Amino acid sequence: MENIAKGIWKEVYGEPEVHVPTKYKKVAAKLDVVNELSDSKEGIVEKTVKKITFNKTVRGITLTLPMMPTEDIYGFGLQFFGINHAGKRRFLKVNSDPVADTGESHAPVPFYVSSAGYGIFVDTYRYTTFLMGTSTAKGASRNMTQENMPHEEFSESALYALKRAKEERKIIIDIPNTEGVTVFFFEGNIMECVQRYNLLSGGGIVPPRWGLEPWYRIYGGSNQMSAMLIAKQFIHENMPIKVIGIEPGWHSHSYSCTYKWSYLFPSAEKFIKSMDDMGFKLNLWEHLFVYPQAPFYKEIEECAGDYEVWNGLVPDFATDKAADVFKQYHQKTFIDEGISGFKLDECDNSDYNPSNWSFPDCSQFPSGMDGEQMHQAIGVLYQNLIKEAFEERGKATYSEVRSSGAFAAPLPFVLYSDLYNHKQFITALVNSGFSGLLWCPEVRDCQNGDDLLRRLQTVIFSHQALINAWRIPNAPWKQTDIVKNLDDVQMDDADYYTNECRKLLELRVSMIPYLEDSFKEYEKNGKPPIRALVMDYPDDMNVVSIDDEYMFGDDILVCPLTYEEGTSKEVYLPEGQWTNIFTKEKYQGAKKIHMKVPYNSMLVFSKKDSFDFIQK
Amino acid sequence: MENIAKGIWKEVYGEPEVHVPTKYKKVAAKLDVVNELSDSKEGIVEKTVKKITFNKTVRGITLTLPMMPTEDIYGFGLQFFGINHAGKRRFLKVNSDPVADTGESHAPVPFYVSSAGYGIFVDTYRYTTFLMGTSTAKGASRNMTQENMPHEEFSESALYALKRAKEERKIIIDIPNTEGVTVFFFEGNIMECVQRYNLLSGGGIVPPRWGLEPWYRIYGGSNQMSAMLIAKQFIHENMPIKVIGIEPGWHSHSYSCTYKWSYLFPSAEKFIKSMDDMGFKLNLWEHLFVYPQAPFYKEIEECAGDYEVWNGLVPDFATDKAADVFKQYHQKTFIDEGISGFKLDECDNSDYNPSNWSFPDCSQFPSGMDGEQMHQAIGVLYQNLIKEAFEERGKATYSEVRSSGAFAAPLPFVLYSDLYNHKQFITALVNSGFSGLLWCPEVRDCQNGDDLLRRLQTVIFSHQALINAWRIPNAPWKQTDIVKNLDDVQMDDADYYTNECRKLLELRVSMIPYLEDSFKEYEKNGKPPIRALVMDYPDDMNVVSIDDEYMFGDDILVCPLTYEEGTSKEVYLPEGQWTNIFTKEKYQGAKKIHMKVPYNSMLVFSKKDSFDFIQK
Repeated sequence: MENIAKGIWKEVYGEPEVHVPTKYKKVAAKLDVVNELSDSKEGIVEKTVKKITFNKTVRGITLTLPMMPTEDIYGFGLQFFGINHAGKRRFLKVNSDPVADTGESHAPVPFYVSSAGYGIFVDTYRYTTFLMGTSTAKGASRNMTQENMPHEEFSESALYALKRAKEERKIIIDIPNTEGVTVFFFEGNIMECVQRYNLLSGGGIVPPRWGLEPWYRIYGGSNQMSAMLIAKQFIHENMPIKVIGIEPGWHSHSYSCTYKWSYLFPSAEKFIKSMDDMGFKLNLWEHLFVYPQAPFYKEIEECAGDYEVWNGLVPDFATDKAADVFKQYHQKTFIDEGISGFKLDECDNSDYNPSNWSFPDCSQFPSGMDGEQMHQAIGVLYQNLIKEAFEERGKATYSEVRSSGAFAAPLPFVLYSDLYNHKQFITALVNSGFSGLLWCPEVRDCQNGDDLLRRLQTVIFSHQALINAWRIPNAPWKQTDIVKNLDDVQMDDADYYTNECRKLLELRVSMIPYLEDSFKEYEKNGKPPIRALVMDYPDDMNVVSIDDEYMFGDDILVCPLTYEEGTSKEVYLPEGQWTNIFTKEKYQGAKKIHMKVPYNSMLVFSKKDSFDFIQK
Repeated sequence: MENIAKGIWKEVYGEPEVHVPTKYKKVAAKLDVVNELSDSKEGIVEKTVKKITFNKTVRGITLTLPMMPTEDIYGFGLQFFGINHAGKRRFLKVNSDPVADTGESHAPVPFYVSSAGYGIFVDTYRYTTFLMGTSTAKGASRNMTQENMPHEEFSESALYALKRAKEERKIIIDIPNTEGVTVFFFEGNIMECVQRYNLLSGGGIVPPRWGLEPWYRIYGGSNQMSAMLIAKQFIHENMPIKVIGIEPGWHSHSYSCTYKWSYLFPSAEKFIKSMDDMGFKLNLWEHLFVYPQAPFYKEIEECAGDYEVWNGLVPDFATDKAADVFKQYHQKTFIDEGISGFKLDECDNSDYNPSNWSFPDCSQFPSGMDGEQMHQAIGVLYQNLIKEAFEERGKATYSEVRSSGAFAAPLPFVLYSDLYNHKQFITALVNSGFSGLLWCPEVRDCQNGDDLLRRLQTVIFSHQALINAWRIPNAPWKQTDIVKNLDDVQMDDADYYTNECRKLLELRVSMIPYLEDSFKEYEKNGKPPIRALVMDYPDDMNVVSIDDEYMFGDDILVCPLTYEEGTSKEVYLPEGQWTNIFTKEKYQGAKKIHMKVPYNSMLVFSKKDSFDFIQK
């Protein structure tokens, strides 16, 4: 076992593959900072590694290690259904519509942390299954004698739940299609392991200030004129929107893309300039599937995979040529013209979408990657090249991406999803901090004005304050009903919701210095700006599975409500005194408290008595 | 390519594995009957096979063949979400809760039929992915020039749907973890290909007459006394129930199982005898996970897999010893005592259930099978041994099973599911006929009395007329609300629903001779007794995707309604004259007809003027 830095080791099992996350990791590890961290669970990695068994079969390889009944498990990327994966099977396959709690995700990350005091990163792009204590070895139960126990409840969940045994279970890491793998081990409590992983990745980022200001993606049917009009309306109504996102219609052909302005934007240069004059940054939607009429189609054809998606090439960004052609085109055509970033769509995969788009797992790419590896890699490869495109021009970006993976902490991209369950979006926010990911629980469809407020409340306390209005020509605070919005009919209480939304967006703006400080910590020492309570309170057994509250920086605890939850909620506050930043009420923690909160207020608590950022 | 019989060929690609469906197929093919069938698409297999490309990679193997834009695709086992798989990705992995249209199923079968006139069976237990025209090869779209096309609709489905191209697409069969595979090819129209597949399997079955009579699974909390009482009540109320199913409580320990009567059934022998005297057959619930207190635990331990499920052993039924120990115990303890069959539960897999029970894919079994192979094989292996257990005793069974797979036509088992969407259950019934499967859309949870009628209507026109009342002590026609049923509170209109249900059950009984004739065809020439319209009307383009109507034998067309659909429906009737068997109204087919039907009637049509079976 090779020691990489204090509390980080590396072990090689069998013969690893060529195409693995470490090969495509572009940012140097911050090992000097790792060495300054404490490792509070000294010796646990050494003990754990000794118990690992390695096995090789026709299916691939497995690593097996014991799991104590008391262990809690966190990580695995952008998970929507809960934070504690003890007793769960996690299938780490990238997917655009993870409809169930299988482990599939827009951003699966083969990294987990155990509350026992260690973390494991598996350096693979394979669709790996982590069985986190789902199984006992043959014979473990041999001495069980219980029989003829009456039980009263008859339901499937009761029958299955009764069987959660207390014995030592197994963690099984099942990696297909390889003869070996490199594993990184991290030591410390949950926070320390996550910091070590993030620092090995290269540390977190600090977004440009404008990236933390409010964003708004405009109607998909917009043209240059209507885009200008809505921007002017924001100014007129004092809505502090900073970044405007343009959806697929700007391409002369999208699905797949030409990366050329369409007839809807007849003088794009002038448009960018005018928006800039008004103080707006512009972000352009795209995906990587290259339509035959894209200017660089022929140039990139030789470095594309053997299957098309939506009639477009799939460029192999693991080859220098494909990455360079794509990057240079973007620099010359967009970045030099003032575009601030991109929304990189559909770089995930599609098993649950009825249209089953995307390339097969058995695709072959010129780099030697197959489709399985490419699916897991492509989100990060795509981010790498766009990041470099800006860096080489000396510009900062803060962009969006629908898929990510390993070692993503230094990438200035925020994840999003077309799924739209508010509760799941909150859980994803809580989980993002375990895996070096940034996540936007974007405001999109809303049932009504109060649902809009609840969703906007969550999004302003997230990594990116984005309203995605791609389906509606008028702002959602004017009309939440899509059909009426398309008919330009305002809702009765549009003024009220406009004002309430403005207040929330202004609150976001006021928090930016605080948020920047949190991101600076992320950059410096890998501490995620948004994170589960269990990272800050590792000894509090009440927080081990809390998936709907989170720390927002070091001092603030946020408990967003969904519209469905109504206007009251049981909140758990950890030990210490907490002040509701809106009502100024103080609470003594280490208990659950039933709280009421109207739709136009929030449950946000400060550890400190002063919270200047909302009191300007 | 080896010719097996008229219209059936076999080709070997690479080096196939040892553990494949043909190895565990126990019933001899009826090749003499195959030779009597016509093969209406002469030469298509030869042409198709010539276009197949075979590729071997570290991931396994792929077979690739062209697919015309006009081709429709059927099969792949017990699919819940539609019948036509053209343009779909089918992931054939056995799963207990296939929550989305991925191809996963209780009974995935690696067999499909194309409307082009051929069928393919892939002899593998691997989790195979069939990409049925989802992809085009690189360059296929190179000459597309369309740009700047205005479009008005903005939604995800619109953006994705626009891209269904017209070019030649690929069928890709992606088989992991093997170096080769044997493929069987079938020629003919859809019906002929299905018949050939079923006859290669050994032909269909004819259930014992009692198996076609109504079934009732009693409350899970029942004891010997309450079981007798409900049986007496059926007699008293003239409910023509024939088979009584007993749920897990009869085991002294279940989840995992002891296969020993519990304290709830203190004199089991007497109980079986009394039920038999009253004219009832008994069916016992079980699964294959062997609890330490099972009498044959120690004997079977050496032939079990390396992981437990619910503290029980997983016997390796691919070894003779495990199968024999299990079989002989069942013969001696149950079959000789008069038990008529079993309900073989949880022999599928569990990726979507929150408890993630079942053994890992990387399990190892003494036979040499791994967990992936065993998951796909175990349903059929389990059925084989129970079938043999009865056959060796000279008795017939008609049993239930939750998982099946390849070559299942000669197995006297009916599939069921714990999912409970009525529409999906109907689609599964339509699909069952493509893959040699029998399926029970069992009546279980009902929202109210009319929902009960709608579900019972479907089930009496299925392979097994089963009411599964495991959650409720009183019959559902007395009370559909579970909580009130547990409190012995009858619903106001219990008498009405009791009478309506009795009429439906009596109708089922009256249909048995007709149904037996249909099963005899199934046995003799492989023609499934319940099947999609497209099998009987291959030239009618209107039926290619109809997934909520089906042929019930040669003469009857059934169009069940769900409660959600209410009391009217658009029905498509194929060419010819059709008579509603209840109202006697006649309809000219080859069109869609809007029909009204109250909750206590059905849309069932006969090709013939006389339909004696309901007129007794």
